[in-house]
Amino acid sequence: MKPIITAFERSPDGGQGLARDTRIRWAFEEVGQSYDVRLVSFRAMKEPAHRVRNPFGQIPTYEEDDLVLFESGAIIFHIAERHAGLLPVEAKARARAITWMFAALNTVEPPILDRATTWIAERKEPWCAERLRLVDDRIRDRLGDLSACLGRADWLDGPFSAGDLMMVSVLLRLRSSGILDEYPNLSAYVARGEARPAYQRAFAAQLAINAGTPPA
Amino acid sequence: MKPIITAFERSPDGGQGLARDTRIRWAFEEVGQSYDVRLVSFRAMKEPAHRVRNPFGQIPTYEEDDLVLFESGAIIFHIAERHAGLLPVEAKARARAITWMFAALNTVEPPILDRATTWIAERKEPWCAERLRLVDDRIRDRLGDLSACLGRADWLDGPFSAGDLMMVSVLLRLRSSGILDEYPNLSAYVARGEARPAYQRAFAAQLAINAGTPPA
Repeated sequence: MKPIITAFERSPDGGQGLARDTRIRWAFEEVGQSYDVRLVSFRAMKEPAHRVRNPFGQIPTYEEDDLVLFESGAIIFHIAERHAGLLPVEAKARARAITWMFAALNTVEPPILDRATTWIAERKEPWCAERLRLVDDRIRDRLGDLSACLGRADWLDGPFSAGDLMMVSVLLRLRSSGILDEYPNLSAYVARGEARPAYQRAFAAQLAINAGTPPA
Repeated sequence: MKPIITAFERSPDGGQGLARDTRIRWAFEEVGQSYDVRLVSFRAMKEPAHRVRNPFGQIPTYEEDDLVLFESGAIIFHIAERHAGLLPVEAKARARAITWMFAALNTVEPPILDRATTWIAERKEPWCAERLRLVDDRIRDRLGDLSACLGRADWLDGPFSAGDLMMVSVLLRLRSSGILDEYPNLSAYVARGEARPAYQRAFAAQLAINAGTPPA
């Protein structure tokens, strides 16, 4: 039986690939595992039938026989543990790749999500523009450190890993902001991720569902 | 050789145990692994000697022979993989416990950290009080879902795991806000975590360093 993931029936980004099912699709494509998708609406996501999959009423989720998981980090880790190609075999390199997965989700993504939340949920508040400038500076703090760490390397620690998959996925959310362009090596890093055939297939699969949905 | 972690020379919380070294200490205590601590100042944290441990200039870090890790999630996972007691042996239960680690760090912690950041970094902004109310409602959304999911259980999925260790650590940051008291089963859950002898030893160890430091 193929694993089943859930994704938005209509993604709020209109097919830009920024919803978190894209990163799961990408991981499946990297390891060559086919999967099925169950589409859910915003309304269905908050109902009990979906909350047994994710108590927070969000996508993506992962089902495989009677195993049900949520959280994109946990799902990608689960895929990476069960297939070759996303985590190094050598124990120390593997631990470092996992570190980059957590760094992407917990150190780099939070200010980037704060930007999106402020933009969407606080757009009509009088402080929105001024606060976005503060948040953008917090993003720049992280990107400056990340840029220095990446240097001229192709990937964060040796060959491409689940850590890079997650970091590129997180940085992609900044595309429309222009901030990424201030860090040429990070822009090139993201472009390198997007150019991978597995990413291309994942992007196309979500676009086939979401093309034409008006951006939120 | 014992693993070495880094911690604040003087924690900004004055010994409340909210800095992220406490969760690492807790994990070590749960599995019975002794460890050494290297204290770093805020200034030293941003210097090259520390940035080779953590490119973002933060604590905690983990060193074991020539392996260097950062990110509390990655460090706790590393400890949990190498010692019995923090992750179930059965594969599906293990994957679910890992899911709760990611859920704590990526779904529950972000609005809680947003609250702390707004409180500290935006205290003098005219929007601070009004924005805190918005953020508190986002926290309540998460806590309501988590409370419904926990129900009357002691821990999130069977026996205590690294998922609970992380979730309790994240929720502890809300203690001074009073918000946790609105969810009696979550308050009791956090108290259950704090009552564990391993947590008590971890808390005491950080307090011995930070007692008397004025809260930030």
